[in-house]
Amino acid sequence: MARVKVAINGYGTIGKRVADAIDAQNDMEIVGVTKTGPSFGCEMAAKKGFDLYCTSDDKDMISSFEDSRFVCKGGLKDLLSKSDVVIDCSPGKMGATNLKKYQEAGVKSIFQGGEKHSLTGLSYTSCANHLENFGAETTRVVSCNTTGLSRTLVPLYDLCGSLKVECTMIRRAADPGDSNKGPINAIKPVLKVPSHHGPDVMTVKPEIEINSLAVAVPTTIMHVHAIIADLPENHGLTTEKILDIWKGTPRVIVMNGQGNRITTTAEVMEMARDIGRKWGDLHEIFVWEDGVRLIGNRLYYFQAIHQESDVIPENVDCVRALMKLEQSWTESVTKTDQAISRYYNI
Amino acid sequence: MARVKVAINGYGTIGKRVADAIDAQNDMEIVGVTKTGPSFGCEMAAKKGFDLYCTSDDKDMISSFEDSRFVCKGGLKDLLSKSDVVIDCSPGKMGATNLKKYQEAGVKSIFQGGEKHSLTGLSYTSCANHLENFGAETTRVVSCNTTGLSRTLVPLYDLCGSLKVECTMIRRAADPGDSNKGPINAIKPVLKVPSHHGPDVMTVKPEIEINSLAVAVPTTIMHVHAIIADLPENHGLTTEKILDIWKGTPRVIVMNGQGNRITTTAEVMEMARDIGRKWGDLHEIFVWEDGVRLIGNRLYYFQAIHQESDVIPENVDCVRALMKLEQSWTESVTKTDQAISRYYNI
Amino acid sequence: MARVKVAINGYGTIGKRVADAIDAQNDMEIVGVTKTGPSFGCEMAAKKGFDLYCTSDDKDMISSFEDSRFVCKGGLKDLLSKSDVVIDCSPGKMGATNLKKYQEAGVKSIFQGGEKHSLTGLSYTSCANHLENFGAETTRVVSCNTTGLSRTLVPLYDLCGSLKVECTMIRRAADPGDSNKGPINAIKPVLKVPSHHGPDVMTVKPEIEINSLAVAVPTTIMHVHAIIADLPENHGLTTEKILDIWKGTPRVIVMNGQGNRITTTAEVMEMARDIGRKWGDLHEIFVWEDGVRLIGNRLYYFQAIHQESDVIPENVDCVRALMKLEQSWTESVTKTDQAISRYYNI
Amino acid sequence: MARVKVAINGYGTIGKRVADAIDAQNDMEIVGVTKTGPSFGCEMAAKKGFDLYCTSDDKDMISSFEDSRFVCKGGLKDLLSKSDVVIDCSPGKMGATNLKKYQEAGVKSIFQGGEKHSLTGLSYTSCANHLENFGAETTRVVSCNTTGLSRTLVPLYDLCGSLKVECTMIRRAADPGDSNKGPINAIKPVLKVPSHHGPDVMTVKPEIEINSLAVAVPTTIMHVHAIIADLPENHGLTTEKILDIWKGTPRVIVMNGQGNRITTTAEVMEMARDIGRKWGDLHEIFVWEDGVRLIGNRLYYFQAIHQESDVIPENVDCVRALMKLEQSWTESVTKTDQAISRYYNI
Repeated sequence: MARVKVAINGYGTIGKRVADAIDAQNDMEIVGVTKTGPSFGCEMAAKKGFDLYCTSDDKDMISSFEDSRFVCKGGLKDLLSKSDVVIDCSPGKMGATNLKKYQEAGVKSIFQGGEKHSLTGLSYTSCANHLENFGAETTRVVSCNTTGLSRTLVPLYDLCGSLKVECTMIRRAADPGDSNKGPINAIKPVLKVPSHHGPDVMTVKPEIEINSLAVAVPTTIMHVHAIIADLPENHGLTTEKILDIWKGTPRVIVMNGQGNRITTTAEVMEMARDIGRKWGDLHEIFVWEDGVRLIGNRLYYFQAIHQESDVIPENVDCVRALMKLEQSWTESVTKTDQAISRYYNI
Repeated sequence: MARVKVAINGYGTIGKRVADAIDAQNDMEIVGVTKTGPSFGCEMAAKKGFDLYCTSDDKDMISSFEDSRFVCKGGLKDLLSKSDVVIDCSPGKMGATNLKKYQEAGVKSIFQGGEKHSLTGLSYTSCANHLENFGAETTRVVSCNTTGLSRTLVPLYDLCGSLKVECTMIRRAADPGDSNKGPINAIKPVLKVPSHHGPDVMTVKPEIEINSLAVAVPTTIMHVHAIIADLPENHGLTTEKILDIWKGTPRVIVMNGQGNRITTTAEVMEMARDIGRKWGDLHEIFVWEDGVRLIGNRLYYFQAIHQESDVIPENVDCVRALMKLEQSWTESVTKTDQAISRYYNI
Repeated sequence: MARVKVAINGYGTIGKRVADAIDAQNDMEIVGVTKTGPSFGCEMAAKKGFDLYCTSDDKDMISSFEDSRFVCKGGLKDLLSKSDVVIDCSPGKMGATNLKKYQEAGVKSIFQGGEKHSLTGLSYTSCANHLENFGAETTRVVSCNTTGLSRTLVPLYDLCGSLKVECTMIRRAADPGDSNKGPINAIKPVLKVPSHHGPDVMTVKPEIEINSLAVAVPTTIMHVHAIIADLPENHGLTTEKILDIWKGTPRVIVMNGQGNRITTTAEVMEMARDIGRKWGDLHEIFVWEDGVRLIGNRLYYFQAIHQESDVIPENVDCVRALMKLEQSWTESVTKTDQAISRYYNI
Repeated sequence: MARVKVAINGYGTIGKRVADAIDAQNDMEIVGVTKTGPSFGCEMAAKKGFDLYCTSDDKDMISSFEDSRFVCKGGLKDLLSKSDVVIDCSPGKMGATNLKKYQEAGVKSIFQGGEKHSLTGLSYTSCANHLENFGAETTRVVSCNTTGLSRTLVPLYDLCGSLKVECTMIRRAADPGDSNKGPINAIKPVLKVPSHHGPDVMTVKPEIEINSLAVAVPTTIMHVHAIIADLPENHGLTTEKILDIWKGTPRVIVMNGQGNRITTTAEVMEMARDIGRKWGDLHEIFVWEDGVRLIGNRLYYFQAIHQESDVIPENVDCVRALMKLEQSWTESVTKTDQAISRYYNI
């Protein structure tokens, strides 16, 4: 069977990771990636053997590659003309403009969580609504935070039939490669209360009632969620049963923090580096086993989110949904993750 | 009327601040402060004119001051013999041993939040239980976090008659003068769930139901609380009314964060330095006006806590309670705060 | 004798500190301070009893104070008409425009280190060139770094008659109240080599040969200088003699780091808070006694600089130089510092 | 030809990296790695297919693996009996004890920079003294800082025949996976002056005169060196020629910081992650092209050091020296680096 042809529009922080993850699969392939001009990222694309296109169709911008050692195969339109689906990894606020281009080219499209749900009217997380996205023309893979919340909340909801959640998000203030943003020594509450983060879960799982508060703190590596979830009466669960469910959930890692000396996000990221994915990425949500406790109906737990990478495998599954490659989300997740492991020789 | 004679056992981070606050009042006076040996703190005591005693009654330790330029007036026993009440500001875990000494000397005593409630069987916060402490022999001023929670929750409870609270505490990982502790770039969840912080409120206000989760983050200057409080049905309140209550509450500052460009704890601390108390202290709890929102019965808000100093004025009020100087907590608070303002010429 | 009338143009981070320091003296007085509009700083000015003026002469800007609870006495021109000398503490890049206004008003002026030497053709540090500034019309108090270097290098030069210096400046990346700037977890070299910092010393002491390298690091509280100074042959000095010189130098503190457990800038700042100046300021340069070592002709040492405040007393001395109040720089320094100590009741 | 049999004693931060680098070569192989007991590291070894041994020969410690899912093949003695050379990656201070064991087993040994030169009387850096180590029984690969200094200074020395160097080392205060160490917001000078770092270069290149000062700062990812090197008179060099030399030097990367938007260590590490070695390692020393400047005889430059990994390829070369596999250091470096690139599919 012919592989699905995937374009990456925006070969940056997210784009470069998604490209690798797509490249690892045997039912899809990268037909090209875009950059605005010749820069370090082009070298990576060249090494990988990905065809390089210009983010723009403007001739001057395209010709800016001519003086460099990189071959630019054309503009975005040229790339789209060869693609079945485009994954939009451009920086925020370009969504509306780009969607129009994709539609005009007759190419399906996947946006990232920086765009709003209203752009596509449809959002995606593997575990929540794969089928709802089956065959869709355009959708949005939700943000790293929403993806993280869905991973642990959706299986709980599916078991209980009801869930009221409050999440306090302790967010990294800047990414590891971003040296401009602060604060260096302060805590910054998000003064929009409740924050937009929690309710975004309802774009993929409307049945979960959820609100959130958020603060930014001087760290670069991971977000932490402090979650309180109210289960329905007669839930019949225990802390142990909930841990068992999560231990069987794809893309969730449950580990004892004190026993394994993984008591902060620093050690979680160190463990991720040991796993061996490129960039030291952690696609899984990390739940501290000894930080989970059910008291009556109220469940307390902490989870850590690798903001740069947890959505990467979801983008692969999302291609399968849109292109009708695989109806079962668990089948897709297994394919995706095994292929990525092989790719990085883990 | 003779002033109440107050001893400070442990002239360190908390002790030096409490000593100043006591010294500022006209119904009590410092009769002496203790240090384990000659060191920088002794100089401060000397400048202030506080008599210096040794934390120990051991002759060798007392004589260690002889070679220095500081005059040591004796051991702890000598100090206690001249005191009506001792404020124990020694580092944690000395409580049981010290309490015995105070009792043997027939001196009333006030411990700090590092000690457990069970040591004294009684705890203190000005706004919660001043009368309960009236004339008591020994008590404990609760921790910075518990004091902060009481300041905003007790007036709410008094109005509503019921309150169920969840608090996520985003804690500074080290104090400003402590350069040994990390983490430098990580978030550390407190894996004891729920954490001990919230429930400690119930030692001063048992009627408030409260739990908490806690994380430590790489900052030194303040804690932030992200609070969710469930009011009873038919509470009759609005966000504005709650803000009005807090604006009229002693030792609570309510300010618009975005309007005043005070969007992080860095700017809160900068404002505190402008106020002009020594050490740049902020005795008040800082509530972001634009971070407060009541949705149905559920109230969301953020507050910032200066961990080094919010309990300082409570210690003064607590002396008045134990020594029966003032029955009304609001009268005591007014006296305390006005005297401190005069002392620092604010 | 009538006090010299001093205006502060720009009542911000530096301006508020200089105003207090001037207010503390008995041979000069604050006739007014400027703000661009009503804001928190106005309240501080009001509490202090400083007359408030608008930074601009624009009627709309002046009238913006009308709706506030602050009384604005007029525009900058009005203030200048009552002043003998103006201390320009406005944010950088306004120098040329402002100097013209001051000259037109016939008022002497003092700029800060954010402006270039070429603006005034004259710079000032108390210990280096007080007499050179005697009676001058306009000058510039050099930056915190240059002031710090002058404090320890000028007395060495005066003793040796020759000095070749290399300084690596490890700079705080943002001020304590600035939560926007990063980096959170990185070191940022200043790629202009050598950096402008060291050579600026030559604007006040041209005889000292000096270059510098600079890096910014994720801390907010102090700069540290790592200094290598080559003395002339036959210098006749020892590490101990150099320490003795600095111990006798005004506005230099020499302390043993390991003996006093002051091994980082965190503990230095904590000591400063104990001293008791407002904002926890440290006007002195801190030299680690056990970090000084002379090997042959080469002297190695570390010093810490409180970037927010070391230039504050220099501004007072500078007023005395321009207004011919005191010919002796050491006399001026003594007056300034004693008055500040009395002001803050230290 | 049979591959050289290499043991790794201590499969931790350095050990796990060295094991991979050895495993990548075709003239040597890993015969086993040691752990003190069953833990996360064992899993990595198992995945890699490395035989696992106990760091100790104590039967109880060896049997502690029995209850785990990991197979322990015996104690250190058992491993040594199968090895030609052991790379000691155990935590510091075990050197003397371990060296005895290695000698008794008749196995050559390589220690790391945490041990002193006096332990082995011989030290190693690929570019400085490969031949001096040829056939040696035991040696020490110098520390990350010394390795970094050697990489850029040795080729300069070889060209000039004389070099006097001062280096200020701005050190990361803790490693990325270490969440206990501070400071969070301070700069910590190393009060031993000069620091031990610079002079350690003379253990591999005694002809270079060098001293250093060091400070620790709140970052986890890289050290930065601010270097001043005095060339001899008549050196005949220019900034450009020096850059050309370094551009042709193995394991040195020279890049324009401003042109490539790599202005801090954060962006350097991000570039390293893009390269694709496991753990995001950067074996190369990073020199900012626009931070290099030769003024007269004095050369100024900045370089960044990845403290976790720059010594990794040196350990491979060092095996070749001790085992007489390759006389030419440049040949060895090329073999090592090409094999590592293939291993990680870069």
